[in-house]
Amino acid sequence: MSEQTDVAAPHPAYDELRRLLREAATLQSASSIIGWDQETHMPPAAAPLRAEQMAVLSSLIHERRTSPRIGELLARCEGDPSLGADPGAAANLREIRRDFDRHTRMPGDLVREMAETSSRAMHVWRDARERNDFAAFAPWLEKIVVLTQRSAEALGWPEGGVMYDALLDQFEPGMTTAEITRTFQALRGGLAPLIRAVADSGVQPDVSWQRTPISIAKQEAFNLDVVRRMGFDMDAGRLDVSAHPFCDGIGPGDTRLTTRYAEDQFPSALSSTMHETGHALYEQNLPKGGHFGEPLAEAASTGIHESQSRMWENLVGRSHPFWEWALPAIRQSFGPSALDSVDVDAAYRSMNVVEPNLIRIESDEATYNLHIMLRFDLERAMLSGELPVRDLPAAWNERIRADLGLEVPDDARGCMQDIHWSMGAFGYFPTYTLGNLYAAQFWATLRRALPSLDDDLRRGEFGGLLGWLKENVHAHGRRFTAPELCERITGARLSHEPLLRYLEAKVRPVYGL
Amino acid sequence: MSEQTDVAAPHPAYDELRRLLREAATLQSASSIIGWDQETHMPPAAAPLRAEQMAVLSSLIHERRTSPRIGELLARCEGDPSLGADPGAAANLREIRRDFDRHTRMPGDLVREMAETSSRAMHVWRDARERNDFAAFAPWLEKIVVLTQRSAEALGWPEGGVMYDALLDQFEPGMTTAEITRTFQALRGGLAPLIRAVADSGVQPDVSWQRTPISIAKQEAFNLDVVRRMGFDMDAGRLDVSAHPFCDGIGPGDTRLTTRYAEDQFPSALSSTMHETGHALYEQNLPKGGHFGEPLAEAASTGIHESQSRMWENLVGRSHPFWEWALPAIRQSFGPSALDSVDVDAAYRSMNVVEPNLIRIESDEATYNLHIMLRFDLERAMLSGELPVRDLPAAWNERIRADLGLEVPDDARGCMQDIHWSMGAFGYFPTYTLGNLYAAQFWATLRRALPSLDDDLRRGEFGGLLGWLKENVHAHGRRFTAPELCERITGARLSHEPLLRYLEAKVRPVYGL
Repeated sequence: MSEQTDVAAPHPAYDELRRLLREAATLQSASSIIGWDQETHMPPAAAPLRAEQMAVLSSLIHERRTSPRIGELLARCEGDPSLGADPGAAANLREIRRDFDRHTRMPGDLVREMAETSSRAMHVWRDARERNDFAAFAPWLEKIVVLTQRSAEALGWPEGGVMYDALLDQFEPGMTTAEITRTFQALRGGLAPLIRAVADSGVQPDVSWQRTPISIAKQEAFNLDVVRRMGFDMDAGRLDVSAHPFCDGIGPGDTRLTTRYAEDQFPSALSSTMHETGHALYEQNLPKGGHFGEPLAEAASTGIHESQSRMWENLVGRSHPFWEWALPAIRQSFGPSALDSVDVDAAYRSMNVVEPNLIRIESDEATYNLHIMLRFDLERAMLSGELPVRDLPAAWNERIRADLGLEVPDDARGCMQDIHWSMGAFGYFPTYTLGNLYAAQFWATLRRALPSLDDDLRRGEFGGLLGWLKENVHAHGRRFTAPELCERITGARLSHEPLLRYLEAKVRPVYGL
Repeated sequence: MSEQTDVAAPHPAYDELRRLLREAATLQSASSIIGWDQETHMPPAAAPLRAEQMAVLSSLIHERRTSPRIGELLARCEGDPSLGADPGAAANLREIRRDFDRHTRMPGDLVREMAETSSRAMHVWRDARERNDFAAFAPWLEKIVVLTQRSAEALGWPEGGVMYDALLDQFEPGMTTAEITRTFQALRGGLAPLIRAVADSGVQPDVSWQRTPISIAKQEAFNLDVVRRMGFDMDAGRLDVSAHPFCDGIGPGDTRLTTRYAEDQFPSALSSTMHETGHALYEQNLPKGGHFGEPLAEAASTGIHESQSRMWENLVGRSHPFWEWALPAIRQSFGPSALDSVDVDAAYRSMNVVEPNLIRIESDEATYNLHIMLRFDLERAMLSGELPVRDLPAAWNERIRADLGLEVPDDARGCMQDIHWSMGAFGYFPTYTLGNLYAAQFWATLRRALPSLDDDLRRGEFGGLLGWLKENVHAHGRRFTAPELCERITGARLSHEPLLRYLEAKVRPVYGL
C-alpha cells in the first residue's frame, strides 16, 4: 500500500489524461444517480424520457472515453519512462489502455441503442414479471440478444476463443469461457454429491422461525444498524428499497445500496442487506479521493466485487459466531417476545439449509452455484442462436427440473426472475460464482491473519475484518488484475477447492453427515 | 387552442432544430433529476461531487444551446415563409431566437462557474442557516453577487435601462425594473392603509387550532389526497419532502413537487402543498408530448408560473367555499376528535389573518408582498454595489423593522431564510408578486366564466377550474408572452387593481372593517 502513485516530475499529458477521465466519470456518476432514481423513485410515466436521458448520457460518456485526445495523451504517457517506472502510474496506464481499446471498438450508435433499449426493456421486464407474461418480454429480450451479439462482434475475442469471451472480458478481464467451464465442472463435481447426500439425509432443519412476522419498520431499523456496524459511512451513502436489491458506488461521497423487505422473511432481507453492504464497503474504500475516474480507484473485477458481497452475506452472515451476536440483537430490536422458540444453534442451522429453490437470490450457498451454471449455459445458447428466445422458458424449466428437481410454476419464478438480461448484462452471471470462489479462498487466508475473528463476530465487531479487506483488497483498486490479486493475497491461483472445503465443513455437520 | 402547430410541408431544418432542442432538454432533465436528488436524498458527503456533476452538465447543456448549428438552422427557418405563416411555428421560432441570443451572450466558463459555485453555495447556505452563521455564508454570497454581475454584463440590457433588467428578462421577458417599481409602488400605496387598518382594528382571529398536533403520517396522507383531487397525475410525478418546498417539471411524465411538514403546523404544510401543486399542474399540462424542449412546451414566464401556484394556494386554498369542504375532510382524515373546537367561519378567518411575519413563506397574502418589495430593493442594492454583502443583515433587519414593525432575532429568520440568493437566482423574487397580481386578474375573469366555481369548491371538486386553466393558460406554453397572455385572457394589461380589490374584499370583513 505504500507504493508511490503520484509521480514527482511534472507530466502535463498524464495530468490532462486524468482530468479527462475524471470528467467522463463525473458524467457517468450523473447517469448512475438517474439509474438509481429509476429503480427507487421514478414515476412510471417517466420511463420513455428516462430511456432518452440514459441514451444521451451514455453516448456522451462513450464519446469522451473514446475521444482521439485520450488516445494521443495515452500514447505520450506510454512513451514516458518515468511514468513507466512508477508502479501506480504504470498500472493506471495499463488499465486506461485496456478501457480505451475496449471503448473504441464499440460504435457510438450501438452504445446508444443498447442504453435506450435496455432502459425500456427493464421496464417491460418489471411489468411482464408482475403479470407473468413472458410473451410481452420476449420481443425485448430478442432485441437485447441481437444488440449483445453486435457488441461482442465489435469487441472481438482472441484466436481460439468464443464470442462469449468478448462479453466475459467486460466483467472479468483475462477470464475465458473455457476456464470458467472447467472450474464450474470441477465445482459441480464436488457439489453434486454433497447436495445429494443432504437430500438423502432425511434431516430437515426447522426454518419456521424465519417466517415470524416482523414489521417492515422494525426490519428497516435493524438492517440500518447492521449496515452501520459493518462500517458503512451513512454520511457518504444511503440505504433504500428497490424490487431488485443493488449497490452503486456512484462516486466519492455517494455510495447507495438497496434492499427489499417482506414481513414474513426478515432473514432474507438481512442477507440481502449484508450482501449489498459488502459491495458498498468496497466502493466506499476504493481510493476515489484522489483518483476518481482512474482505474486505480475502480474495482479489480466484477468477480472480486462479488467476493466482497458474498463474504459478508455468507461467510460472515451465515456463520455460527455471527448468529451468537445476531440472534440476541434481533430479539432486542424486534421486541422481547419475538423469536422466543429458537436458539443460536437452531438459527445457525436454519440459515444453512441446503435445499433447491426456484429463486436464485433465495438459494443456499451450495445450490446457488447450480443456478449460475444454468444461466451461464442458457445465455451462451441464446447468443449462439442455438436457443431461440421463444424457447427460453421451456429450456429453463427443463434444466431446473434436471439440476434442482423442481417444477417451475410460472415464468415469473422461472426465466424472468432476474433483471440482468433485460439490462443487457450477458456475461455477468458467472461472476457470482467466481465471487463465491474468491470469497472462500480469501477467507481461508484472512482467518489465519485474524486469529480473533470469531470472537469479533460474536461481539458484532467487524472492524478487524473490514480493516483487512481495506488493506488487502479495497485499497488496490485495479492496480492488480483479479488473478494477480488472488495470488498476491492467497499465494495461489483461483481454485474450486477452498469453496468446496468450506461448504463440506459447514453443511455436513448441519445434516449430521 | 386549435391553431395548427405541426406544419404540413417538409422542413428538414425545422425538424433538425427541434431534435437538437429536445436533446438539450433531455440533458437538462437529467440535470433536474440530480438537482431534485440533491434537495431530497443526497448524502452530505456527496456535495462536492454533486457540484462537479452539475457543472459538467450545465456546461454541456450550454454548449448545445449555443452551438453554431442551432444558429444556422434558426436562420434558415426564419427565412422560410411557410413556417412564418404558421402561428405555432412562428411563435416557437420567435422564442427559440430569444433563447439562442440570450444563451450565446453567456460565456461557457461563466455558466460553468455559476453552476459549480451555486451548487456549493446552496450547501453552505443550508448549514449556515442551521447554525445561524451568516459569516460562513457571506463569502459564498459575495462570489454569487460577482458572478451575477458578470452574467448581467454579458446578457446586456436595453438603452436607458438598468443592469437589473438583464436579470429580470431571464424570468419575465419584456418586464422592466422601472415598470415593476411603478406597479409595486401602486400596490404598496393600497396595501399600506389596509395593513394599518387591520392592525388598528384590535381584532385578533383565533389561530390556536392551527397548532393542533397532527402526526406527519396523517398529514402526508391528507396532502397526498389533496394533490390528487387537484388533478395531479401521480403516475407522472411524485410528492416528497425537502427543507424548502419546490416543484420541478423535469420532463414528459416526470413532474416532482415537495412540501414540508411540522406536527404543529398542518395548515402551513397544506398551503405549501397546494402552492407547489399549482406549479405542478401547469408543468403536467404543458404540451410536452410532442414539443418537449421547444418553447411551445414551456411556461410563459416565471410570473405566470407563480400565478398558478398562488391561485391554488390563496384564491382557492384560503377561500370560504374551499374550507367548507376542507374542514370536514380534514376532520375525517385526522380523526374524529381533532379540531372539534373550530367551525368553518373560524377556520376561514384564521386562514386569512393579516399579520406581519418574519418569514416570507409563512406570511399572509397582503404583507407577503412587502417581503418581496424588500428583497427586490436589497438585491438591486447588492448588485449595484451600494449594499456590501457584509451589511446585508443590518439592512435587512432595518427594513423589516420599518416595513413590518418586527425585530429580526437572528439571520436564520432574517436574510438567510430563502434559498434563492445561494442559487444565484437574482431577479427572481419580484415574480412572486407578479404571480399574485396575475392570479387575481385571471381569477376575476374565470369567476365570470365558471359560475359554479364556488359550489365546486364546496364539494372539493377542482376539475372545472383546472379545465379552464388548462385551456386558457397551460396549453399555450410560450406561444404568447406574459403580457399578451394576460391581455388575451382578461382583456387588459397587468394592473395592481384586481389584487387590491380582492384583498380589500376579503380582509375587511374578517377584521370587521
